[in-house]
Amino acid sequence: MAHIALGNDLPGIRGLMAYRPETEGALNALAEILLRDENNSLSRGARELIGTYVSYLNDCFFCQNVHGALAGHYLGCNIDEIDAIKADFNAADLSDKMKALLAIAGKVQQSGKAVTSELVAAAREAGATDVEIHDTVLIAAAFCMFNRYVDGLGTTAPLDRQFYINRAPQRAEDGYLVLR
Amino acid sequence: MAHIALGNDLPGIRGLMAYRPETEGALNALAEILLRDENNSLSRGARELIGTYVSYLNDCFFCQNVHGALAGHYLGCNIDEIDAIKADFNAADLSDKMKALLAIAGKVQQSGKAVTSELVAAAREAGATDVEIHDTVLIAAAFCMFNRYVDGLGTTAPLDRQFYINRAPQRAEDGYLVLR
Repeated sequence: MAHIALGNDLPGIRGLMAYRPETEGALNALAEILLRDENNSLSRGARELIGTYVSYLNDCFFCQNVHGALAGHYLGCNIDEIDAIKADFNAADLSDKMKALLAIAGKVQQSGKAVTSELVAAAREAGATDVEIHDTVLIAAAFCMFNRYVDGLGTTAPLDRQFYINRAPQRAEDGYLVLR
Repeated sequence: MAHIALGNDLPGIRGLMAYRPETEGALNALAEILLRDENNSLSRGARELIGTYVSYLNDCFFCQNVHGALAGHYLGCNIDEIDAIKADFNAADLSDKMKALLAIAGKVQQSGKAVTSELVAAAREAGATDVEIHDTVLIAAAFCMFNRYVDGLGTTAPLDRQFYINRAPQRAEDGYLVLR
């Protein structure tokens, strides 16, 4: 049971958003521009993967499953492959650029100050643009917010991971602007 | 110097927002609804104080000074009093409710999972409503994003704390929707 009386049975962040529609709009607008905007050289799959990895590091079950299923949907990976990336992205079949961006995202999860100029230089060397580095940091930072929001209010979520996999294609179609 | 070429000399988050106006709007809309919306039983000063405290815990110089100056402006405190609250809010002249909410915010800074039902019960006991608890968690979570965004991209900021104090009244008047 969540820490506050939400008045609905919706899982994870969806229950919070239904409870507090006043803040829902800005949060969804942020997710939409960060994760789905088509005018972005990072693919939707890459961006969802960054969010998934940070949610994994923050141990947020709901977010890592929602976004892990979406990353899998976009990238054509199954859940085992997504899990393997989360556990050790350096060993996964990903581009050097993606690995360098995930390394930055992992540092952002610890603290903004943990991002070094060496990590940024390595990402640039691997082909990342400044905008891609910017977006990686902001996506990682945003998931540090979303994860804390979901877990800080003690929300509940389905434990069956297939639930998230089943929903991903529809979410990919609908986007984040209308969650209910 | 920031980790990426921002093409402007604006300090902290303002330089990032000018660099990436695509994401600026959603971030500012979130700050505006969370920190300034008048339909909220938490005062603007209380909300800025929550953001200041989390920014202090995250060691984000820019955010803790911008929002500390705003909290001081709204609450009628000087910078020394704000610093004392950050260092030990339990010893400060604050209501029991405010102390209970700051205790929750401090846990959110660590991890969403660190918020216990005991802390939530204590806040409720001290008079906090569920919406106030919700907003405290979301404000604290949002500053975990803003702080990581500002420091994760290595932005620079004026070291003279008077700079922030001087700007606070104008920011309080303008709000967050237009930062430049």
